[in-house]
Parts: sequence; structure tokens; C-alpha cells
Amino acid sequence: MARPVIDETHDPARQSWVESAAGHPDFPVQNLPLGVVAPPGGGARGAIAIGDLVLDLGELAASELLEGAAKAAALAGSGASLNALLALGAAPRTALRRAVSALLSDEAYRTRVEPMLHRAEDCTPHLPANIGDYSDFYVGIHHATNVGKLFRPDNPLLPNYKHVPIGYHGRASSVAVSGTPVRRPAGQRRAPDRDAPLFGPTARLDYELELGVWIASGNALGEPIPIGSAGDAIAGISLLNDWSARDLQAWEYQPLGPFLAKNFLTTVSPWIITAEALAPFRTAQPARPAGDPQPLPYLLDEEDQSSGALSATLEVLISTARMRAEGHPPFRLSRTAASHMYWTMAQMVVHHSVNGCNLRPGDLLGTGTISGADSESLGSLLELGEGGRRPVVLPGGEERCFVEDGDEILLAGRLGAPGFVPIGFGPCRGVVHPR
Amino acid sequence: MARPVIDETHDPARQSWVESAAGHPDFPVQNLPLGVVAPPGGGARGAIAIGDLVLDLGELAASELLEGAAKAAALAGSGASLNALLALGAAPRTALRRAVSALLSDEAYRTRVEPMLHRAEDCTPHLPANIGDYSDFYVGIHHATNVGKLFRPDNPLLPNYKHVPIGYHGRASSVAVSGTPVRRPAGQRRAPDRDAPLFGPTARLDYELELGVWIASGNALGEPIPIGSAGDAIAGISLLNDWSARDLQAWEYQPLGPFLAKNFLTTVSPWIITAEALAPFRTAQPARPAGDPQPLPYLLDEEDQSSGALSATLEVLISTARMRAEGHPPFRLSRTAASHMYWTMAQMVVHHSVNGCNLRPGDLLGTGTISGADSESLGSLLELGEGGRRPVVLPGGEERCFVEDGDEILLAGRLGAPGFVPIGFGPCRGVVHPR
Repeated sequence: MARPVIDETHDPARQSWVESAAGHPDFPVQNLPLGVVAPPGGGARGAIAIGDLVLDLGELAASELLEGAAKAAALAGSGASLNALLALGAAPRTALRRAVSALLSDEAYRTRVEPMLHRAEDCTPHLPANIGDYSDFYVGIHHATNVGKLFRPDNPLLPNYKHVPIGYHGRASSVAVSGTPVRRPAGQRRAPDRDAPLFGPTARLDYELELGVWIASGNALGEPIPIGSAGDAIAGISLLNDWSARDLQAWEYQPLGPFLAKNFLTTVSPWIITAEALAPFRTAQPARPAGDPQPLPYLLDEEDQSSGALSATLEVLISTARMRAEGHPPFRLSRTAASHMYWTMAQMVVHHSVNGCNLRPGDLLGTGTISGADSESLGSLLELGEGGRRPVVLPGGEERCFVEDGDEILLAGRLGAPGFVPIGFGPCRGVVHPR
Repeated sequence: MARPVIDETHDPARQSWVESAAGHPDFPVQNLPLGVVAPPGGGARGAIAIGDLVLDLGELAASELLEGAAKAAALAGSGASLNALLALGAAPRTALRRAVSALLSDEAYRTRVEPMLHRAEDCTPHLPANIGDYSDFYVGIHHATNVGKLFRPDNPLLPNYKHVPIGYHGRASSVAVSGTPVRRPAGQRRAPDRDAPLFGPTARLDYELELGVWIASGNALGEPIPIGSAGDAIAGISLLNDWSARDLQAWEYQPLGPFLAKNFLTTVSPWIITAEALAPFRTAQPARPAGDPQPLPYLLDEEDQSSGALSATLEVLISTARMRAEGHPPFRLSRTAASHMYWTMAQMVVHHSVNGCNLRPGDLLGTGTISGADSESLGSLLELGEGGRRPVVLPGGEERCFVEDGDEILLAGRLGAPGFVPIGFGPCRGVVHPR
């Protein structure tokens, strides 16, 4: 599997003339993530985040500042979705990154580039791509074990888990960008003391902390992606909140899996942190514990094992209506690490296509909830609150076993490695509204 | 729920001047299904099937023969997908049907309409719509019971089945039109006598006989479709073959449901039999057996109970390579009826959206396998062959427990009601190719 190279765009000494980029927690000039925004009074178009600003790909493509593959990439990215840019694959995306990094770093370009910048806070974020299909995996092994214990105390991790990157199909239509209101879903749930179900708003609304993986060029129907090529299939990543209604889930999920418990909303952060930006933060996939089976050959690749994981910390924060009224800042519910993924992103892609299933540019894969091994690093409230038995106490004294109306859930994440400027994802947030 | 009216387009005395339409098993002038075809040397465009011909909606829209809502519908349907036409909803679709029925029946229009007709056999069929999301239900209660017995002998029908129209998300990218080759998928399966899985081509390839339901105008995120409006959400139906790899399925499906066992291919027949064409064939939903629970109120509608089922016979036929070489005609494996659906199409739509999940024009819902109660009416080979224990004997002496390379599987279906001209779906077929 080809690993993206570390080049001058990652140089920690490189500074942008965009002042807010210096020391920006998410978007220093070393990041340059891809997204779609609508500036005031304008339509949605491709953009690149830099500090507190965004660079308009439509205006950049129309200028004389790019040529060759970089220009082709900017043109493909200047519409209302990035699908055409993602379809181009790694080389034009890399060319665009290198060109934009130079334009935003070299003071000589400032007067020509500044008119192409919008203030991010003035822009409306959009989904970065039209998502053809959204699939959700289950690669967070601590989450799979914790949830397995709640549903199947005697048998938390099923026999297939360490052989199969377990995944299922999600709903593409209800994937929405950060900030989209979360309408509490209604549905059927089993009453505790009756055989027949009740109908009404979920009483067990939850979040799930995940990464989203955006597909680049994809594959034709019937033509699996070999593990050696899987890196090329991945355009980049976002944060992903797989909102879940646990009571609906418990009642509906047998025998065909979660459906209405999940498909009312999935929130993603607006920016695709590209495979190129991730290069310095790739790290070895943690060794499997002694006794775990080796992956089957189609899932195994030396390069992927040595650099297929990410050095990222991920957090969940909550801000209730009362906390906001009383002036409390958002409260961190958990902090975990991407290294708790039992399978790599490449293994997810390869498994998904090994039967010939076609992935298309702009498709989205969720990793599944990424919990850590201890109680400070759990990626869902179901796990934190032990299925409703141990409420979490918040600043101001409120308690939570599940998410309540008025609560805002915020996901945050940061990639870091010694000698490199850390980068982040930008916000992934949603406020819950009553049904 | 508004029931489409029976009008002059259903008049059994109405004849088309297209000679092949008279007595056509699928496409008499009373059907007029919507599809997308590419005529020789031309691009894909909307069309209506009539006998052995297809009427080009692009050419019709450009003519002076339509006006008002019918013209708007033809214009919306003249592109490479019918999504825009489906989005218009029932009224323009009905206006187009009535206008086309008149044009194809009245000899006075013949000279002007004939140039807009192509021979169906010269055209390449396409999917009728860009499918945003494909969801598959499980409403065939005999199938659910039969398969439940194979996977869970003691507990075939789970406690939620008679309360919840069980469904799960499928893969939109690999839904393909009739005739698309079926590449035998590879994947993991558990070896019978080992703990570790094997990798290789599926040894248990199967078909599933289903109906596909095409969504018309859909709903906004967060706004459920009430049962009284569900009829408007349904544009029409097709045949659907949910190809399945049973060995992959058995190994992967816990805890999140089928994934690679299903997403390598789903075949649909090319034509949408519209809700208007179905009007004469609507019939009462069979009474629930004594002791079965009443559906929850959100799923219950008097009009739907009295007319939400379809009077349709459905068949599966097989033609192996050897049968074709020896001159045997396709052999009927089973014949069943749409009345074996425990939930109506409207109930599927309402349940899908009750949590706020948004359905979009062109979305596709599968019903799940529609088996009958006896051994002549089973909608999958898994059921017919009792999970591999009782091979089906074919003309020429071959035996099948699962589908083999070279086999062609054909689905067929016909709607009939006393006093009306029967109509059909057209072909839903696929030949299996080796991995």
C-alpha cells in the first residue's frame, strides 16, 4: 500500500500569511482540508480551510494561479460537491495541496489570493460530497466488547469479530453536516414489563464517537480493491457522530441489524482531512494480543501494518441547556485514541469490496465507535452510563444516562506527532430538539 | 390513504394501435410502465413500454402532443434518470399516463407518435432512477419463518416480527438492471470443522424473489410520512432479486446484519409499474391470524387494510448452461403470491420514516423474500433446498441446492383481477459467472 509522502507542505517551519493560521488548533497551513461552503449570498462551492478563513476553490480555479493537475483538481472541486475532485484520486489532490500550500505561505501571492478568502464564520457549511452509500463498521474493539456485554453478557465479542471487519449499511440520506439540529426520533420500544411495544420518542438517545472515511476513486462492480491499493481509495477522514436510539435498537435489531435506531441522523464534521495531510500522523497498527488470529491474507499488508493506524486523540464534550445558561463551558465526557481501532481504514475498504461491491467517489465509511479500555475513554453514553445504571454527573449537578433535549454534543479530534505541527478536524456538533 | 382511481386507462376494451400490445403478457396499453432505455446510438432517456416497443419520453416531451401536467411530467422524465419525474408525485404522473394512453389508443395520433417508438429489443435498459438509498424489508412471513428455522431452529420468528416491519439498509451502488452479469462473490465463510474461516468464492449462492418499491416525492428529514399519505410516497413497483451468499451471511451477520452476503449485486426489472397501473389489482390486506397483535396506530389505516395488498403471482425460473445446451426451456422453481406480505408497502414506507428518516425520490425499498406457505411457493433456493439438504432436480437430471456458475435465474410476475387486462413486470434476470 502506497503511503502518502511527507513533503514541504508538512514542514513545521512553514507559516501562512493568513495570521489566524499560526497556532490554529485545527487548520494551520499544514492541514489544508477540503470542504464545501456557501459564502454569504453565494452558492455552495469547494473550499480549503486555513485558520479562521476558507479559500474559495471556484475563484482559485478561475484564476491564473494554478496549472496542470492542481488546476484540474481545483476545477473539479469548484462545484457544490467534491465528488468530481475525489474521483480524480491522489495525484491531482496532492498537486492542489502543494500549490495551495505555496500560495498561502509565500507573501508574494497574498494580494492575489486574499480576495479569494471568506471568513469561515460567515459561511454556511455543507456536506463535502454527495454520499452515494454510507457504511458503518465496528472496528473499535473496546466498544464492541462493552456493548456486547450489555446485549449479550455471556458472549460479548462474537467469534467472527477478530476475523471479519464487521460492518453494515447505513443511511446516506440522513448524513448531515455539523450543526444540523437533532430531532429526537420516535419509534417502537419494548416496555420493560410487557410483551407488546410502546410507541413514542426515544428515551435512550445516545451519540457514538467515530471517524468517517471518505472514498476517493473507488472500484468497478465486480473488481475488488486489493490491500496494496487501498490507500489510493481513501481521500481522507472526518469526525462522525452516529446518533443512536438505544431503546429502538434493542427492540428492532434482531435479526437484520440496526435500522431506525440509527438512520434518523448521522453528523459529520465539514472538512475532509486529506490522506496527504495525515501522512505525518500515520503509525504502526498496534500488535494483536497474543492468541488473536492473523488476518486472512486478503486483509494483510506489511505497509498497512506498519503505517495504517493514526496518531489521533478524539474527544466527546457535552453542553446542556442549563450549563449554557449558568455559564459552564462544555464538559469533556471522554477522551480516546484512534489506535483503539482493531482494523485499519485500508482493511475496512478492502473487506467492503472483496465480494465485488463497488465503492464510489464520495462514499462514506464510519469506523464504529472508538472507545478506549478505561472509563475515561468511552465513545458512547451507553458505555459511560453503563446502560443507564451509573449516571454521569455534569458541572452544575445535572446527571445524564442518555442525551436529553437541549443537550449539545460536540466531537473534537486532533492529530499529533513529534516534530510536526498538530492539526484538527473542526467541529462536529449537534443540539437535540424535542420531537 | 388515497387509493389511485380506476379510470379509462384501465378499460379492458381499450386497444392500442401498437399491434404487439394486444395480449402482451407484460405491457398491454393498460400498463404503460416507466423506465429508462438507450436506443441504438443514443443516450439514456425516459421511456414507456408498450407491447414490444418503447415510447421515447424525450421525443414526446419535445412534440406538440402534450400539454400542462402531462408535458411537465414527460419533460421531467426525458433525462437519463426518472428521479425528477418521480419527485413530481402522483398528479403529473397520472396526467402523463392518461395522455399517453390516449395517444397510443387513438389511431388519429399514430402517424405522429410512431416515429417516437423504438423496438425494445434494440434498446439497452438502464436503471429507472439514480437510487439514493436502498433499504430491504423482511415482510414475507413464511420466508422469515423458514429462514429463521435454519438459523434459529428453536426461535424462528422473533418477538418483534409481528410488531415491527423489520428492515435494514442495503447497498445502492450495486443495484443493477436486469441482464447485468452476476459475478460470484468471494468472502469469508466458516469451515464446517474449524474455528477459523476460509476465504474463497461463495459455495452457497442464492436468489431472493422480492418486489421493489420505488419512492415518489419522499419526505424532509425529521418529518415522518403519516400512514394516510403513504400512498403518495409510492411511485410504483418492480421485481427485485436480492442475490445472497448464504455461507458469507451465516458467518458475518451477527451482530449487525447482512453486509457482504448481499451487497455484491441486487437485480431489478427495468420498468416501474406505476401506482396508477396497479389500481385495479389492489386488494385487502389478508386478515392477521387470530392471536396476532394489532399494528400500532401509526401503522394502521382503514383504506390501507382494505386495499393495500396486491393481487400478483410471482415466479422464479432457472435455466442452467446444460439445460440451454440441451434445449430445455427455463424451469419454474416456484410460484408464489404478493399476498404473503405480512406488512403492506404503505406500512413499510411509514415505518421507515417514522423516526424522521428522509426518503428521497428514486429511493428503492425491497419487500424481502415473498415465500408462500407450501413447498411449491418458496422464494429462495435456501428454503427450497432446505439449506442444502434436499436438492431440487431439474429437467435433464441436474440437481441444485444453490446457484451454480452458468445458471440463469429469472423472476417473473403478473398482476390480475377479474374484469381487467392482466399486466406484468418484464424480465428480471441474471446469469452467474465464475469469480
